[in-house]
Amino acid sequence: GYAKIDHHRHLRKGFPEVIFCQGKTVEQVAQIFYRLCQASEVNVMGTRATEVMYEAVKQLVPEAAYDSTARIIMRRRAQTYLHGLICVCSAGTADLPVAEEAALTCELMGNRVERVYDVGVAGLHRLLDRIAILRRANVIIVVAGMEGALPSVVGGLLDKPIIAVPTSVGYGAGFHGLAALLAMLNSCAAGVTVVNIDNGFGAAYAAGLINKLAGDQH
Amino acid sequence: GYAKIDHHRHLRKGFPEVIFCQGKTVEQVAQIFYRLCQASEVNVMGTRATEVMYEAVKQLVPEAAYDSTARIIMRRRAQTYLHGLICVCSAGTADLPVAEEAALTCELMGNRVERVYDVGVAGLHRLLDRIAILRRANVIIVVAGMEGALPSVVGGLLDKPIIAVPTSVGYGAGFHGLAALLAMLNSCAAGVTVVNIDNGFGAAYAAGLINKLAGDQH
Amino acid sequence: GYAKIDHHRHLRKGFPEVIFCQGKTVEQVAQIFYRLCQASEVNVMGTRATEVMYEAVKQLVPEAAYDSTARIIMRRRAQTYLHGLICVCSAGTADLPVAEEAALTCELMGNRVERVYDVGVAGLHRLLDRIAILRRANVIIVVAGMEGALPSVVGGLLDKPIIAVPTSVGYGAGFHGLAALLAMLNSCAAGVTVVNIDNGFGAAYAAGLINKLAGDQH
Amino acid sequence: GYAKIDHHRHLRKGFPEVIFCQGKTVEQVAQIFYRLCQASEVNVMGTRATEVMYEAVKQLVPEAAYDSTARIIMRRRAQTYLHGLICVCSAGTADLPVAEEAALTCELMGNRVERVYDVGVAGLHRLLDRIAILRRANVIIVVAGMEGALPSVVGGLLDKPIIAVPTSVGYGAGFHGLAALLAMLNSCAAGVTVVNIDNGFGAAYAAGLINKLAGDQH
Amino acid sequence: GYAKIDHHRHLRKGFPEVIFCQGKTVEQVAQIFYRLCQASEVNVMGTRATEVMYEAVKQLVPEAAYDSTARIIMRRRAQTYLHGLICVCSAGTADLPVAEEAALTCELMGNRVERVYDVGVAGLHRLLDRIAILRRANVIIVVAGMEGALPSVVGGLLDKPIIAVPTSVGYGAGFHGLAALLAMLNSCAAGVTVVNIDNGFGAAYAAGLINKLAGDQH
Amino acid sequence: GYAKIDHHRHLRKGFPEVIFCQGKTVEQVAQIFYRLCQASEVNVMGTRATEVMYEAVKQLVPEAAYDSTARIIMRRRAQTYLHGLICVCSAGTADLPVAEEAALTCELMGNRVERVYDVGVAGLHRLLDRIAILRRANVIIVVAGMEGALPSVVGGLLDKPIIAVPTSVGYGAGFHGLAALLAMLNSCAAGVTVVNIDNGFGAAYAAGLINKLAGDQH
Amino acid sequence: GYAKIDHHRHLRKGFPEVIFCQGKTVEQVAQIFYRLCQASEVNVMGTRATEVMYEAVKQLVPEAAYDSTARIIMRRRAQTYLHGLICVCSAGTADLPVAEEAALTCELMGNRVERVYDVGVAGLHRLLDRIAILRRANVIIVVAGMEGALPSVVGGLLDKPIIAVPTSVGYGAGFHGLAALLAMLNSCAAGVTVVNIDNGFGAAYAAGLINKLAGDQH
Amino acid sequence: GYAKIDHHRHLRKGFPEVIFCQGKTVEQVAQIFYRLCQASEVNVMGTRATEVMYEAVKQLVPEAAYDSTARIIMRRRAQTYLHGLICVCSAGTADLPVAEEAALTCELMGNRVERVYDVGVAGLHRLLDRIAILRRANVIIVVAGMEGALPSVVGGLLDKPIIAVPTSVGYGAGFHGLAALLAMLNSCAAGVTVVNIDNGFGAAYAAGLINKLAGDQH
Ligand SMILES: Nc1ncnc2c1ncn2[C@@H]1O[C@H](COP(=O)(O)O)[C@@H](O)[C@H]1O
Ligand SMILES: Nc1ncnc2c1ncn2[C@@H]1O[C@H](COP(=O)(O)O)[C@@H](O)[C@H]1O
Ligand SMILES: Nc1ncnc2c1ncn2[C@@H]1O[C@H](COP(=O)(O)O)[C@@H](O)[C@H]1O
Ligand SMILES: Nc1ncnc2c1ncn2[C@@H]1O[C@H](COP(=O)(O)O)[C@@H](O)[C@H]1O
Ligand SMILES: [Mg+2]
Ligand SMILES: [Mg+2]
Ligand SMILES: [Mg+2]
Ligand SMILES: [Mg+2]
Ligand SMILES: [Mg+2]
Ligand SMILES: [Mg+2]
Ligand SMILES: [Mg+2]
Ligand SMILES: [Mg+2]
Repeated sequence: GYAKIDHHRHLRKGFPEVIFCQGKTVEQVAQIFYRLCQASEVNVMGTRATEVMYEAVKQLVPEAAYDSTARIIMRRRAQTYLHGLICVCSAGTADLPVAEEAALTCELMGNRVERVYDVGVAGLHRLLDRIAILRRANVIIVVAGMEGALPSVVGGLLDKPIIAVPTSVGYGAGFHGLAALLAMLNSCAAGVTVVNIDNGFGAAYAAGLINKLAGDQH
Repeated sequence: GYAKIDHHRHLRKGFPEVIFCQGKTVEQVAQIFYRLCQASEVNVMGTRATEVMYEAVKQLVPEAAYDSTARIIMRRRAQTYLHGLICVCSAGTADLPVAEEAALTCELMGNRVERVYDVGVAGLHRLLDRIAILRRANVIIVVAGMEGALPSVVGGLLDKPIIAVPTSVGYGAGFHGLAALLAMLNSCAAGVTVVNIDNGFGAAYAAGLINKLAGDQH
Repeated sequence: GYAKIDHHRHLRKGFPEVIFCQGKTVEQVAQIFYRLCQASEVNVMGTRATEVMYEAVKQLVPEAAYDSTARIIMRRRAQTYLHGLICVCSAGTADLPVAEEAALTCELMGNRVERVYDVGVAGLHRLLDRIAILRRANVIIVVAGMEGALPSVVGGLLDKPIIAVPTSVGYGAGFHGLAALLAMLNSCAAGVTVVNIDNGFGAAYAAGLINKLAGDQH
Repeated sequence: GYAKIDHHRHLRKGFPEVIFCQGKTVEQVAQIFYRLCQASEVNVMGTRATEVMYEAVKQLVPEAAYDSTARIIMRRRAQTYLHGLICVCSAGTADLPVAEEAALTCELMGNRVERVYDVGVAGLHRLLDRIAILRRANVIIVVAGMEGALPSVVGGLLDKPIIAVPTSVGYGAGFHGLAALLAMLNSCAAGVTVVNIDNGFGAAYAAGLINKLAGDQH
Repeated sequence: GYAKIDHHRHLRKGFPEVIFCQGKTVEQVAQIFYRLCQASEVNVMGTRATEVMYEAVKQLVPEAAYDSTARIIMRRRAQTYLHGLICVCSAGTADLPVAEEAALTCELMGNRVERVYDVGVAGLHRLLDRIAILRRANVIIVVAGMEGALPSVVGGLLDKPIIAVPTSVGYGAGFHGLAALLAMLNSCAAGVTVVNIDNGFGAAYAAGLINKLAGDQH
Repeated sequence: GYAKIDHHRHLRKGFPEVIFCQGKTVEQVAQIFYRLCQASEVNVMGTRATEVMYEAVKQLVPEAAYDSTARIIMRRRAQTYLHGLICVCSAGTADLPVAEEAALTCELMGNRVERVYDVGVAGLHRLLDRIAILRRANVIIVVAGMEGALPSVVGGLLDKPIIAVPTSVGYGAGFHGLAALLAMLNSCAAGVTVVNIDNGFGAAYAAGLINKLAGDQH
Repeated sequence: GYAKIDHHRHLRKGFPEVIFCQGKTVEQVAQIFYRLCQASEVNVMGTRATEVMYEAVKQLVPEAAYDSTARIIMRRRAQTYLHGLICVCSAGTADLPVAEEAALTCELMGNRVERVYDVGVAGLHRLLDRIAILRRANVIIVVAGMEGALPSVVGGLLDKPIIAVPTSVGYGAGFHGLAALLAMLNSCAAGVTVVNIDNGFGAAYAAGLINKLAGDQH
Repeated sequence: GYAKIDHHRHLRKGFPEVIFCQGKTVEQVAQIFYRLCQASEVNVMGTRATEVMYEAVKQLVPEAAYDSTARIIMRRRAQTYLHGLICVCSAGTADLPVAEEAALTCELMGNRVERVYDVGVAGLHRLLDRIAILRRANVIIVVAGMEGALPSVVGGLLDKPIIAVPTSVGYGAGFHGLAALLAMLNSCAAGVTVVNIDNGFGAAYAAGLINKLAGDQH
């Protein structure tokens, strides 16, 4: 077998099993996915998965599904949802794949998710129109490429934890997401923390941990 | 007057008023600190403050105090503390100023704090000896310079939100904290989010927001 | 003599004569300033000037004045002002020296200037409160450090040319203004152009050229 | 629908509606282009568009045209032109796509444009031969890759606003346009402002705003 | 002929002859491989070799074999093995090609190798379970991408020379292995030295030299 | 026509006409090549040319030839050679295309060239074996990738101008030639100057100018 | 007390206790040095120590000595030396502090050391004159700034493990040791591994581990 | 003694002996300078020397002189000058120290030098006024900071070897000379080669070697 199953994962009970597919061969992905499905009854998901990987997985795990925007392969199980809400904001259409990776991961972890898309800072009214829904969330994931300014604006309007996800959307001096990453790390709005470029999964995981802490009181 | 008081700060009720002193003149710091103290009854704090700034503040606000490790000027008010616990871990002795900036900020925001210092990954037993206290926390702030590996190890041991703070401790190819920053952004442990190099304040603020969400149920 | 006087400067008739003082010795600054004052009847100004340089200039040009925030030495002459307005916005208190370098340069070029300071994006209401004055300007200079998000927000609200000035304000992954510079270059708001980090002078000069084009019709 | 139409665009009346096609799927581009054409009577344009995107657009908007050098899809409407002139200079043959993106955008915004191409600084006579036409412009867009020196030379010859566009033309230590970008940001000629690498559109938009300010008096 | 055979290689008697195939044409690889096989009786190996290169080599050297994970072409000769042991650790599945390049190179140099794979720091128990085998090695090669933390942890547990190999595994702010490289160079565990990103061969060669020094006494 | 012919090129009488083909379309290359051939009787050459470009050129200029290693299209004319010698050294087999771009350009400019290939510093005897031929040259072009050490060693052995050409050969922390470039710029051997990564043409051109200065006296 | 004593250090029996003084306050250094001296009978050393730190240490540990070139404070104990030899090579005079940090650390770990200084590659004869002594070593530490070429040359001449230490010696495009670091990581000589810029201590520690493995048989 | 005298320097007969003083202690500089003066009758020079170093040298070598702009200590001997001319151009006043380091080094090597200062590209007429003198030179050293455009313009006007020296003059995105360095490496003018940032000495040395080749025929 390729990868040892991480036994300490019992810590995360109820959490999905996760495979990071990028950099693995198609065969490795299929085998690991299969083994995780056999070994547990929770959701199983593979991120950064290609169509081809999904075809291979489906041979072994027929109930597996694929979301081509989020690039996630998943075997879903009946699950209960937390009361608390997570919002996923994004700046532009090209940020969609990362935003959907985040949103779908949140859902697979048992969170209710509200999507607030296409609210980039160059058209502020679009964000201000949606402020009510943002206020209801326990934690907000903010996805943006280019200049990465959205987390600062959202963070200034709300006093909730903001998880900022820079995307590689842009060109030239965007340096594949570096500009957005640096902007987010230097946010003058307190309460903003940052994950790696295009890491929708990581943002969702952290948001899920926070939402779980928040429990039912919201 | 130098800086307009941020009216939307009413959002953060009970939160301290904060001045970022670096880049301001001594006179500006003293005036702004004084005005914030006049205008509200909450804690007032100035981060990245020098001894000289403190002297100027004390002329106007005699009850102000100064923590020279955390480099924080503060005017404290009686406050109640949340039940939830925040842990601040740090890797080495030279990370202390950033760790203390984080810890003291947490306290000024009304959080109970446990310090778990000097537990760098090159001597794993030091961290493992303290695992029990880490498990009791709602959120863990992990401060490390050099190779910035500590958040990955802590994040692998616990299923709580980890806020990683890279420090500028190191030399040469540490590039003033860049090595640690990149390591933390690339952490293979899910649940880790990152703030700017040496930004103990920012980590504490985000941790405080999370701990508040967690409420009293822990 | 140290520097040849740039004869093509006749092109810029009515424009001030400018010395970039940084990197020159005190004696060089004083001599060049003196010679320019002798040679012309327009305003003469030296940017990035120290107190010590000013003392040396004053020995030779007694009517010279010094603005210690803008770090500009100037010999002013009676001048007429254009009708058009230039706004200088800035995000935080520490951006003041650059904002003032821009504002004072605009004035020395014969422009009316309105200062809109301390309107960083983390407290959006501060900017929105000042929108009326911004609308009256022909061109807006926007000065910001940290994440450099302000030009995107201003550019989204107005359809006037925006000249963005990143400042070296910040620390860590701000990389001495690089984060703000990259953010501004990647602005998703059309109409934003950018100058070098801390280059208040350059922004003002370009704004002055634009305002002059706009002539009297506003 | 994919992207919310930006309602504040009423600000820019008479301006074209613009889609940045890169990073969007072919279907998204076609849908958004179609919707914008339905919703307004101004010019509609899509930048960074591929041949394939154009084919999809033409299915829905038969009168759409495509400029394969500028990579722009456009639906043109009868328009009036401003009296003021914009010049677009470029250094070498390989800079053409960016120069044409700029020139065509200017035209779609209602500006008269003069193209002054292939006037790189290593053959100064080529530029000097064209100086008369440059002097007639209100604003000059200067497009250059490699060492990015052209804006400094043009800026030194004229007292008009210069908008510099670095291109990714070059190799090795050109770092995909970074060398040209840095050169332009450090221009010793006052009056030069800069946009992102290869951002012909952005330069044109800013130039269009300036030319509009200049009105009819030139 | 393309490349002069390196005569000083007699120094390395018993060592394999090595070709670095990347950047050479298929024909060059085949010719050089063939000539080396003719000229000596030791193992001959080509690293970073493609399937296509192997096909060309096999035409000339029928006994050549190919390992597609390690991307090594080899002509093996009967060899004796040193008593000392080299361990090759790796963090994740995607690091396998580099780890196998290292392991196979060690073997071709006459070293006994133990593979300790999939022991990344986010699941510490996996590493601790294998500590006994690590202790038996004279030198440990540690292969990791992402945040590159594994060498620090291994180096803290053992007092043997550690050779760290950063891999290009990761994305975004991993910058193709830079994050892992910097982390390893800044390791707070003494005894760690580092080779180039993805340089499994180089690590193995250095390890082989050390293991040879250690001789038979272990 | 696409590109204005550079009239000041009369300065370089006897010199070849040169087209930099990269970044131009196939049609542009063919047209410009054709026009230059029509307009002059000197050698005409196109660097960074693909096979496909050559095919298009041959349609219009049947006597054109192509060197696929140097990637140069050329129309050669009878020429006289300078007495002085230029040596082209290179470190490894993968540096060949750049070394040949340099060597062939030198020849097309009328220089006698000696190739000293495959003399990288890790096998010093290879270089020392060829020292006599190096001593006969007026100027030495040194081509190397990886760590770029060869110019320092050659420069230390000879007191002739050395033109160092870093190549993009390498991987990982070679950063596409950056490591070699920086090494060469920091050479501790006096007399070394440097051109852009992979710029064999530029090195040859400078060497040709120097060799011409040296005239016939060597 | 400031820093927890690292209990796992029993692993390294006979090894010196080490404090990294940089980033610690004078008082912290003195206290930790004192405690380590009380707690054990091995050598105790502090690297990157200032004169002032030494004065404070001497108050508490009168037998402490200070080497101002190596910047090491030490309390030495009678020790036995390994038979194997470590060579420390360096390129230039300015590399001396790092070379001496390495050499003295080796000695404090019980190794015999031979210094081969001032043998930079621009004067190859200096290195070749010393080749005999280099051949007697088990492991060679090579210290160089500027272009960092020395390890490649030494590594090509010998088949022993080479530990390369880039130094921050140089200026401009040396980028404080980055050029040398990259060169060393890209060394075309097999057997070279690298430590952080200026990390003489780390190189010595790794060399000491290797020399210990080599035991008495040399 | 500190530094071994480089015996192969006999190669460079008639050339000055040179010490790079930066990074050496005052005592080391004085001792080495003294020893070189004793050992030879040629010019002896120390670059990057401070006033304090000069004082120490004068104690041992009373006839030593110091040029505080060029930062060079020298012991001059009667020398003959080559007929050929070297021109040193510079862009601005702040580039003077580097330009003078170059000019004085040329003279100490026996070259006649013409200084053409303050001819930056933003005022082209200044350069064009001096073109006649430039044409008389065998080789031209071009010193410029900021955007580093001057070598491209000079190189386009002349067909002589150009040695470009980027300076650290500038601020912000000049990155201490990096912008100018990259511009020069990417020069579109053929015949330009480049040395390290601020390396006036290196440029002069290479220019001197070329001028010597040119002999008396000019
Ligand atoms: N050490 C710190 N690093 C980053 N941001 C800070 C720090 N301390 C305070 N801040 C932020 O700076 C804001 C105050 O900035 P100012 O109004 O410029 O004093 C606070 O509201 C915080 O969000
Ligand atoms: N703060 C500044 N930043 C950038 N350029 C400046 C600045 N101040 C003045 N300059 C430019 O520097 C020129 C004068 O340079 P100099 O002749 O070296 O004094 C002026 O014409 C301006 O174009
Ligand atoms: N490989 C090359 N790298 C850099 N510059 C080149 C190269 N080949 C040609 N050139 C330069 O490019 C000029 C021609 O550029 P273009 O007019 O764009 O074809 C020539 O005069 C040379 O100075
Ligand atoms: N010059 C140095 N560079 C890098 N690491 C060092 C240096 N000197 C000591 N160390 C390491 O730092 C550890 C001690 O760190 P500390 O406990 O913070 O004093 C030692 O065990 C060494 O591994
Ligand atoms: Mg907030
Ligand atoms: Mg965890
Ligand atoms: Mg706008
Ligand atoms: Mg101008
Ligand atoms: Mg260890
Ligand atoms: Mg030499
Ligand atoms: Mg070797
Ligand atoms: Mg030329």
